[in-house]
Amino acid sequence: MANNENTLSFFALGGLNEVGKNMYVVQYEDDIFVIDCGGKFPDESLLGIDLIIPDMTYLEENRNKIRALIVTHGHEDHIGGIPYFLKKLNVPIYATRFTLGLIELKLDEHRLRGDTKLVTIDSESKLEFGETSVSFFKVSHSIPDCLGIVFHTPEGNVVHTGDFKFDLTPANNQYSDIHKMAEIGRNGVLALISESTNAERKGLTPSEQMVGNHMDEAFLKAEGKIFVSTFASNINRVQQVVESAIKTNRKLALLGRSMVNVVSVAIERGYLTLPEGMLIEPHDVDNFAANKVAILCTGSQGEPMAALARLSTGNYRDVTVYPGDTVILAASPIPGNEKAVSRIIDNLFQQGAKVIYGSGSTTGMHVSGHGYQEDLKLMLTLMQPTYFVPIHGEYRMLHHHRLLAESVGVEKGNTFIMRNGDVLDIRNSVARQTRNIPAGDTYVDGISVGDVGAIVLRDRKQLSEDGMLVIVLTLSKSERKIISGPDTITRGFVYVRDSEDLLKEVNNLVKKTIHDLNEENVRQWSVMKQNIKKSVGQYLFQQTKRKPMILPIIIEI
Amino acid sequence: MANNENTLSFFALGGLNEVGKNMYVVQYEDDIFVIDCGGKFPDESLLGIDLIIPDMTYLEENRNKIRALIVTHGHEDHIGGIPYFLKKLNVPIYATRFTLGLIELKLDEHRLRGDTKLVTIDSESKLEFGETSVSFFKVSHSIPDCLGIVFHTPEGNVVHTGDFKFDLTPANNQYSDIHKMAEIGRNGVLALISESTNAERKGLTPSEQMVGNHMDEAFLKAEGKIFVSTFASNINRVQQVVESAIKTNRKLALLGRSMVNVVSVAIERGYLTLPEGMLIEPHDVDNFAANKVAILCTGSQGEPMAALARLSTGNYRDVTVYPGDTVILAASPIPGNEKAVSRIIDNLFQQGAKVIYGSGSTTGMHVSGHGYQEDLKLMLTLMQPTYFVPIHGEYRMLHHHRLLAESVGVEKGNTFIMRNGDVLDIRNSVARQTRNIPAGDTYVDGISVGDVGAIVLRDRKQLSEDGMLVIVLTLSKSERKIISGPDTITRGFVYVRDSEDLLKEVNNLVKKTIHDLNEENVRQWSVMKQNIKKSVGQYLFQQTKRKPMILPIIIEI
Repeated sequence: MANNENTLSFFALGGLNEVGKNMYVVQYEDDIFVIDCGGKFPDESLLGIDLIIPDMTYLEENRNKIRALIVTHGHEDHIGGIPYFLKKLNVPIYATRFTLGLIELKLDEHRLRGDTKLVTIDSESKLEFGETSVSFFKVSHSIPDCLGIVFHTPEGNVVHTGDFKFDLTPANNQYSDIHKMAEIGRNGVLALISESTNAERKGLTPSEQMVGNHMDEAFLKAEGKIFVSTFASNINRVQQVVESAIKTNRKLALLGRSMVNVVSVAIERGYLTLPEGMLIEPHDVDNFAANKVAILCTGSQGEPMAALARLSTGNYRDVTVYPGDTVILAASPIPGNEKAVSRIIDNLFQQGAKVIYGSGSTTGMHVSGHGYQEDLKLMLTLMQPTYFVPIHGEYRMLHHHRLLAESVGVEKGNTFIMRNGDVLDIRNSVARQTRNIPAGDTYVDGISVGDVGAIVLRDRKQLSEDGMLVIVLTLSKSERKIISGPDTITRGFVYVRDSEDLLKEVNNLVKKTIHDLNEENVRQWSVMKQNIKKSVGQYLFQQTKRKPMILPIIIEI
Repeated sequence: MANNENTLSFFALGGLNEVGKNMYVVQYEDDIFVIDCGGKFPDESLLGIDLIIPDMTYLEENRNKIRALIVTHGHEDHIGGIPYFLKKLNVPIYATRFTLGLIELKLDEHRLRGDTKLVTIDSESKLEFGETSVSFFKVSHSIPDCLGIVFHTPEGNVVHTGDFKFDLTPANNQYSDIHKMAEIGRNGVLALISESTNAERKGLTPSEQMVGNHMDEAFLKAEGKIFVSTFASNINRVQQVVESAIKTNRKLALLGRSMVNVVSVAIERGYLTLPEGMLIEPHDVDNFAANKVAILCTGSQGEPMAALARLSTGNYRDVTVYPGDTVILAASPIPGNEKAVSRIIDNLFQQGAKVIYGSGSTTGMHVSGHGYQEDLKLMLTLMQPTYFVPIHGEYRMLHHHRLLAESVGVEKGNTFIMRNGDVLDIRNSVARQTRNIPAGDTYVDGISVGDVGAIVLRDRKQLSEDGMLVIVLTLSKSERKIISGPDTITRGFVYVRDSEDLLKEVNNLVKKTIHDLNEENVRQWSVMKQNIKKSVGQYLFQQTKRKPMILPIIIEI
């Protein structure tokens, strides 16, 4: 797509009608700016798929116009697709120090370090690309060092909020630049592109300080060891756990690879402060009195291989949960993870632990990093945009965000609820949404990207539900007589030892089918296979009410 | 198990450390009483499994001692296993009129009607079985006609609460027998067996009347059609929808097979009252003004084939959701269903509907049928039992219920948190939990019960994640030369047309493996297959990071 002269465009390659795989594009004439490159975890219907990333066809076709990948913050749904992006596109990445630290961990994993130009920016940076310049502002979120972005184009200013909440008493000094936002708004915002995750929730997001207070209280009350499970990337919360541990004179151990990695990055880069000698190794935990140790661990989402799941069943090598220990879940389950988290809580109770769990509003141990309705209205009010595009959310969230925008004065008709791939063009101050570019889900399975599609998934689904049956037989080329077989091999269908009669009957059916076809003088393999599939399929469904995949294999000698 | 003389026993075959497949047994000497026979829906790890029912080995081995299956109410997790129970055991079923109506629907589906003795009881019934007599009391719940049970044995009285809440202003006159409960308690309760579903939730369950008030309000406000989705079995709530529709002069249509079936049973048996001419057929909906119609539909749990899901995507034949219509979700998602429900809500918003959704405490459109902590304490206080067994819940719920029992005076040490199969024996007023009987999950897949086990499920899991690869080759018996093949057939692994090189290389590898073995003069098939699996498996993992199931098939001619 060559943009028309003076045309400013915005579109999403991911992040609309979904929570995940965020990837947005601002384009002015022939300068393309990519914002974030996230991954999304597949739901249970996408059998065997490891990760979903945005379809990047448009970017590949316009590779020469891409000026920058700007990353707002270091969450997976904003950086998870970067290794796959870099395998196809050589584009410099701009992000803050902490965000770059997390991106570097990811590139190391994929052995992509070295080839990529990584540029450290901060909220005071100003970047120039031809006619467009880019500036930034700080926002509060559940990870340090987050940015909102302003694109200053000849057509006008476009603001992308990143993920944000307003928190006037944040942990870890992660304040929002409210004064700067006000100034940006005063200078005129042509279009505001703002996240919508909590657009359904009334009120203002509670402050991270609330968690700190509750954490202190729980630490004061606890008698045994204290385990706190939270997202490793939520270094602001980790800082609060550190503070509570200092106040109660406890050492701190870290469990789980990502906890160790992210905390290291945070300490190295100055985003986490803790006194010398406070950190101990997991295998040293038992050398301290129980009430002198706190443990930070991964697994708050119920991930079966993470530290918390293994602790809950007594399968963590170095550390054990003993009766009387306290376990704090300082995170809310992401929709879809509720059952896995419940299972862990049950297991922890069975170990005799005191478990603090439930929604943040009940326990005070979690607050969201995404702004509620009043936060979103505050952003809209500060920016007072002409046009508004709600992003980062399911349809109902975008819908509610639109209503919020109208409630604070954005004109009806100036809000655009878009789908991934829909393009908003602004020219001479008039916005139109009339065209679209390719967008969709690209599946990562193993190391292959994009080669698993509908057919493979349909087969996996059938295999997963009723298994399969291979029927092999050898025919003589001349007379069409059966030389060997039929032999039946089955997996995932029935337990073979208990089903000998059933499988014997299948073989008889196959013989009969071949015989009948010979009588009729039918000699095409395809007909033969089709008839075997049909007769065996019907018989098995009638006997078992299952529909295994049937693969007849005919060998001619 | 022959019970010792004078021994009273209690155990669960399902319902402990889980929510689902409730089945409990009270046994006095050689008289066995079975309470409920429920099913449970499998989670996503049990690929292809349709239903889980209790392991009934103990009952089959003691079939002559079983005096009755007593069913407390008609929910799936209390009646879903009955058809499978009846296929093995010929036992009379005792239940109330409405519960029996739902059981009969189920037996009709399985063509089991006629063989079974069904006995209608009510809360005033008294049954005599040898030395034990059985009486009942009414409880309020989210379905009509629910019972608690008292077993009067020579050893003492055992009370089983069924599922219950206390609701002083219930819909549909579904009052609890509080006076009778008080009397039972005054006469002495040796053991109370009480449900624990909401033992984690503080306070008293809100009354169904709250839903009625909010329903009225929504009906008064609505301008277009109104859709209400709820469990078909919640006839008390259906009655309230009927009342709201009468007040606003709307006709009522029913969508979804179970809604039609259950409402018919309820009307026939007198549990639902609605004026003549109020019910209309779905295909007549469009003949009425939009503000003169209300529609009750199934699918509140996001079931993809149910009415609400199809309405949300515009795929319901007779009825369409138009912009301006109101859709009320009068049910909470059961854990695990959250994502499916969200998807439907999004689709409804996209149809332009006004959707009332979210937790009951936010919308007022749903209250739980299970008692909260104060309800549970009230039951414990009324019954004042010597021994207490919390049932019907995950471990953490049983744990909290135990704490509640202690808080109202049950002696520490007199509460038993059991697992399915653990047996509590009471003799001479002393309770001991020392032995257990077989208990576990039995899987129903298609029409077969219990034949799918760990091996089949493991295969399904592997097939679902990475698919499979069949390698066929024909060898000459004499020289071990390859006569035909190797041929490779793959499903669910890679897209074949894009992977010709990969599959060609597999064939080369197989040839090489056979050649190498011939050189070494290895002639066992098993070794040959093992080596093919190994070399092909390693190659594919290195190329794709996937591990498909590899099935080498060698034919000797």
